[in-house]
Amino acid sequence: MAPQVPEKQWAQVIEKTGGPVEYKEIPVQKPGPDEILVNIKYSGVCHTDLHAVNGDWPLPTKLPLVGGHEGAGEVVAMGELVNDWQIGDYAGVKWINGSCLSCDFCQQSDEPLCSKALLSGYTVDGSFQQYCIAKAAHAARIPKECDLAGIAPVLCAGITVYKGLKESGAKPGQTVAIVGAGGGLGSLAQQYARAMGLRTIAIDSGDDKKKMCMEQLGSYAFVDFATSKNVVKEVQEATPDGLGPHAVILVAVNEKPFQQAAEYVRPRGTVVCIGLPAGAYLKAPVFESVIKMVTIKGSYVGNRKDSAEAIEFYRRGVIKAPYKVVGLSKLQEVYDLMHKGQIAGRYVVDTSN
Amino acid sequence: MAPQVPEKQWAQVIEKTGGPVEYKEIPVQKPGPDEILVNIKYSGVCHTDLHAVNGDWPLPTKLPLVGGHEGAGEVVAMGELVNDWQIGDYAGVKWINGSCLSCDFCQQSDEPLCSKALLSGYTVDGSFQQYCIAKAAHAARIPKECDLAGIAPVLCAGITVYKGLKESGAKPGQTVAIVGAGGGLGSLAQQYARAMGLRTIAIDSGDDKKKMCMEQLGSYAFVDFATSKNVVKEVQEATPDGLGPHAVILVAVNEKPFQQAAEYVRPRGTVVCIGLPAGAYLKAPVFESVIKMVTIKGSYVGNRKDSAEAIEFYRRGVIKAPYKVVGLSKLQEVYDLMHKGQIAGRYVVDTSN
Amino acid sequence: MAPQVPEKQWAQVIEKTGGPVEYKEIPVQKPGPDEILVNIKYSGVCHTDLHAVNGDWPLPTKLPLVGGHEGAGEVVAMGELVNDWQIGDYAGVKWINGSCLSCDFCQQSDEPLCSKALLSGYTVDGSFQQYCIAKAAHAARIPKECDLAGIAPVLCAGITVYKGLKESGAKPGQTVAIVGAGGGLGSLAQQYARAMGLRTIAIDSGDDKKKMCMEQLGSYAFVDFATSKNVVKEVQEATPDGLGPHAVILVAVNEKPFQQAAEYVRPRGTVVCIGLPAGAYLKAPVFESVIKMVTIKGSYVGNRKDSAEAIEFYRRGVIKAPYKVVGLSKLQEVYDLMHKGQIAGRYVVDTSN
Amino acid sequence: MAPQVPEKQWAQVIEKTGGPVEYKEIPVQKPGPDEILVNIKYSGVCHTDLHAVNGDWPLPTKLPLVGGHEGAGEVVAMGELVNDWQIGDYAGVKWINGSCLSCDFCQQSDEPLCSKALLSGYTVDGSFQQYCIAKAAHAARIPKECDLAGIAPVLCAGITVYKGLKESGAKPGQTVAIVGAGGGLGSLAQQYARAMGLRTIAIDSGDDKKKMCMEQLGSYAFVDFATSKNVVKEVQEATPDGLGPHAVILVAVNEKPFQQAAEYVRPRGTVVCIGLPAGAYLKAPVFESVIKMVTIKGSYVGNRKDSAEAIEFYRRGVIKAPYKVVGLSKLQEVYDLMHKGQIAGRYVVDTSN
Repeated sequence: MAPQVPEKQWAQVIEKTGGPVEYKEIPVQKPGPDEILVNIKYSGVCHTDLHAVNGDWPLPTKLPLVGGHEGAGEVVAMGELVNDWQIGDYAGVKWINGSCLSCDFCQQSDEPLCSKALLSGYTVDGSFQQYCIAKAAHAARIPKECDLAGIAPVLCAGITVYKGLKESGAKPGQTVAIVGAGGGLGSLAQQYARAMGLRTIAIDSGDDKKKMCMEQLGSYAFVDFATSKNVVKEVQEATPDGLGPHAVILVAVNEKPFQQAAEYVRPRGTVVCIGLPAGAYLKAPVFESVIKMVTIKGSYVGNRKDSAEAIEFYRRGVIKAPYKVVGLSKLQEVYDLMHKGQIAGRYVVDTSN
Repeated sequence: MAPQVPEKQWAQVIEKTGGPVEYKEIPVQKPGPDEILVNIKYSGVCHTDLHAVNGDWPLPTKLPLVGGHEGAGEVVAMGELVNDWQIGDYAGVKWINGSCLSCDFCQQSDEPLCSKALLSGYTVDGSFQQYCIAKAAHAARIPKECDLAGIAPVLCAGITVYKGLKESGAKPGQTVAIVGAGGGLGSLAQQYARAMGLRTIAIDSGDDKKKMCMEQLGSYAFVDFATSKNVVKEVQEATPDGLGPHAVILVAVNEKPFQQAAEYVRPRGTVVCIGLPAGAYLKAPVFESVIKMVTIKGSYVGNRKDSAEAIEFYRRGVIKAPYKVVGLSKLQEVYDLMHKGQIAGRYVVDTSN
Repeated sequence: MAPQVPEKQWAQVIEKTGGPVEYKEIPVQKPGPDEILVNIKYSGVCHTDLHAVNGDWPLPTKLPLVGGHEGAGEVVAMGELVNDWQIGDYAGVKWINGSCLSCDFCQQSDEPLCSKALLSGYTVDGSFQQYCIAKAAHAARIPKECDLAGIAPVLCAGITVYKGLKESGAKPGQTVAIVGAGGGLGSLAQQYARAMGLRTIAIDSGDDKKKMCMEQLGSYAFVDFATSKNVVKEVQEATPDGLGPHAVILVAVNEKPFQQAAEYVRPRGTVVCIGLPAGAYLKAPVFESVIKMVTIKGSYVGNRKDSAEAIEFYRRGVIKAPYKVVGLSKLQEVYDLMHKGQIAGRYVVDTSN
Repeated sequence: MAPQVPEKQWAQVIEKTGGPVEYKEIPVQKPGPDEILVNIKYSGVCHTDLHAVNGDWPLPTKLPLVGGHEGAGEVVAMGELVNDWQIGDYAGVKWINGSCLSCDFCQQSDEPLCSKALLSGYTVDGSFQQYCIAKAAHAARIPKECDLAGIAPVLCAGITVYKGLKESGAKPGQTVAIVGAGGGLGSLAQQYARAMGLRTIAIDSGDDKKKMCMEQLGSYAFVDFATSKNVVKEVQEATPDGLGPHAVILVAVNEKPFQQAAEYVRPRGTVVCIGLPAGAYLKAPVFESVIKMVTIKGSYVGNRKDSAEAIEFYRRGVIKAPYKVVGLSKLQEVYDLMHKGQIAGRYVVDTSN
């Protein structure tokens, strides 16, 4: 029997760029023919959500806007064309809420590059509400054995770092340096890397992060960029043959590492940019990049297949994303902490309060 | 019967960085156990040779030095371990004169990345002499039906652009922009691209170059960077769906295009840097590079297999590198023209005078 | 203004497995929300259509059935969710009429492997009628400059051989043997191969076919399997180094070549099976296959992207599929000729008579 | 100081095809200019060695022959061109003892396909002697922290299954079925698969093997081919979505599984043949292979890079190959057990007795 769907719900709404977010009641939407309605139980809070509030990026948001793109919940309604979802299924609302499924990029499974892609919590309302719409063909399928709060951060952070690791081309047994290893993305990156048979060198600063990276997250080496006298040399020496890591995953939030990675990556190695420091530039000397045959590439979010794979690793229990749950009503406080850089791990909001 | 090898020969020698080159008689060397001695008939003159004279690059040359790394000639002697060459075979002396064949890179067919690679006309004596040494396992095999003067420029310029096209990942039917299309490398790049089933957009300046690129070299579009009001837009509009070329090959000799290509390349596209403008930097905004999933990579020279393939295309007659022959004794004059940027096509020196 | 769509139309209908086809008037269907209605102008006739009539394959057809899956025409109506087609656009009805766009295979652009794929002229009505339904996301986009009769055979035969060439992994400059080179698929395969920068060895029998393959279709060698004393040896000797072709494309309609190709393919080479001789088996000795590291693979039809690429090659004028036009009413006669093996080139039916 | 190398040594020699092996003193050879002499300490015994004695394969052996191709020991002498080995280094003698390093296959890192490849214990004397010759560029580098008896079986069995897993194209998180999982190759295959982030289904028979595969070797499912009512169905049902494993690794020693694997492998999946049952054939129906786009391929031994990677996994302690040590003098007894199929795990001979 179909669940009762209320007419009104609680949501966090941004009325104008710059914020603040306002916790208030708004109407519940009805799914279109190819859409599902998801009763969001938990939603992760991502830096991107703060960028959306602040209008940091050269891409305007919808206004008023309900943010959020790491929502996990249950399907409560669906449009008439939808025949591969059941009421009660667990579903995830991801950054890519929908795409045309027909263009040149969609035809090649690059839905994130579709020019008509709908972005949850950015160009369409997202998961900081109790009932959220998603395109049926794009919502993530979450197995029933998964914990909805725990999986929330996987839906963006997890998928994104997993995609970046795939894009790096690094193969089992090879070494990957994770820059910004102690943060939320970095922690997940190390775990996915380990599950993929990769070996990781964690780059970050501070003894707490070193301990976490090496004892819990499986890195076999740690380079402290704040105290190292020569980061380039130290990273290279941390590889068995001293030639540097096969790949570098940049999840740092400042610019410098983006310009340093090409120096320590192994010849023929790949530097993958994931983090989006505002206004930052990639920069590398042409001569050395050519002579070493270095590749520098940007990796955006995962497609649907990447998402399913990232979720499957989580289901198998090999990925643990540490998180702290607070009520959806406290979202502004989470943003305040985030703004001050005082967040370790991920915050997950509970939409019931 | 083995040919007579003289004790002395004519060569162009650089005694100190900065030049000049001096045309004089020097002794003929004897091949080591795993080497062949090639009686060079013709040698192409490459910008790299001028960089070697001038010490432009952050890598010191041997001194005194015989330059040249596009040498084509006949095998006249070989060491006792060599059993797969015959006296009289045509052989080519390439930039990579030898490598260890054992290291991690050589094991993966990336001989150009071998830290012990010997560089013809740079760290070992090259092809601006009548008799030149090369490692037997590295010298290029030139079919007897090839013209030795004509193939000389293929041995570096041809191999290098062919390698770059392979590294671009562009597939038959896709579009590649060639930046610096009117120069020596660019002309070859367009021809190799055509032979590989790729479609090319030529980027350069001037009506003569436009005519050459579109009428002789097979490009279906030309963008004049000097007169275009918006290079980025014009390049994208030259592709059937307006989304930009799948790859960009940078053989330009100044820095600007290296920073512009990432803007017009197609999402998921690849920018390949080949040219080495002194002191230049790659630069691209992190945000757009990530969102578009752009790849920027350096491509150095080809390995032995790339070289064999590039030569085979030439043998089949689908590659024509226009060149002008002068005596080896006139090398300094060629450098002077090159220094002034007054060379169209390639100069090839004839070692007999 | 939308065109007038009649209520009735002429079609060729199979009432029971084994046939015959009956030319008669039937109702025109209405497109569903995600479908388009195509006024078919021309449709190619493929061996598969005859297999469908005869029930040759271990997969039952819809009954009664309108066959045909190489239909080219104009869009005359569309469902309410369709927003990327215009009335009057040229559209192609392919073998894959639709798929779920959500399953594991669709997520990876392998729509032909979707277990819910709709097959034109097999599990849904196809193009041997004047008005045919197709899923909007799957119908092929045909540029206006294309000739609708000429492109019809490309929509299955062209796409299929192009896909097979892609699956072979052969790279520009490498050699591919086409087995069954003189038939409809084989002729197209040679042309696509040439456009992709590949070199072809044609394998078939008879001087007429030899002449056609070498003079019109671009093959550089021909091996006559009927008169050759040693096909394996002859094919290998037709490659520059005698080691065999890098790939083999099997479009033959009998079993023997499927078991012979693994013998002459180059070590590390790939044998691609496309043709579907009824009841045939692949067979290869384990020892030689392992020692030579041979790959044998099946290639089915292309996905949407492959289809778009195959059409683009046709649009550029580099593919010519010889065909003969007859009225749709004559379909049974075409089947009769096909049954007797008396067809050279492709028949295309004109739905107006 | 260089070690004393004796003039005579103990070895196991085959005088004629069919055997027996004879334990006797023979002269120690001197390394050529590009060779090293390895004082073999331990050598694994492989089925191939028995095939060599018996002349089972369509490739003749050297006679008289010293067998063995999994030898681990210390470098005691080297030729004058060798400059990247030190006396005292640990070295491994592999199946590929040497290759030309110049041909088309060697240029592409496919040394095992070189037509001049030297095969240890087959076309040149192998490791069932105290002092064995190997080409310096091909001998495996064994880190000093490795146990020489323990690593011996890795030098052929380990490298071979690791190569097969790489050739399968299976990616971290995907499922691979190992056919013959309880044998020596199968045990190693499961461990390498686990280290590569792959999930394995073990196929073999008997409760002991089931227990070993699931409790020690990391497989998450076991299918008993002897008691299963429907192997195909059971293997497919062991995968999360019931569509079958992404790859199948065939290390079985009889023919049937080679013809069954194509039935249960996932559409687009790959069947990799490694085992070499005498006289066996691959066989698969053309129709299903094409429709499912199945790939069947042979995988021979690893190249030098694969070998280095396989050894590195062992060094890290993630691979354990159970083995039993006996004196080299007992080799015939090992062959007798092998002939009767009574060996579980691997025998390693100690050359000191």
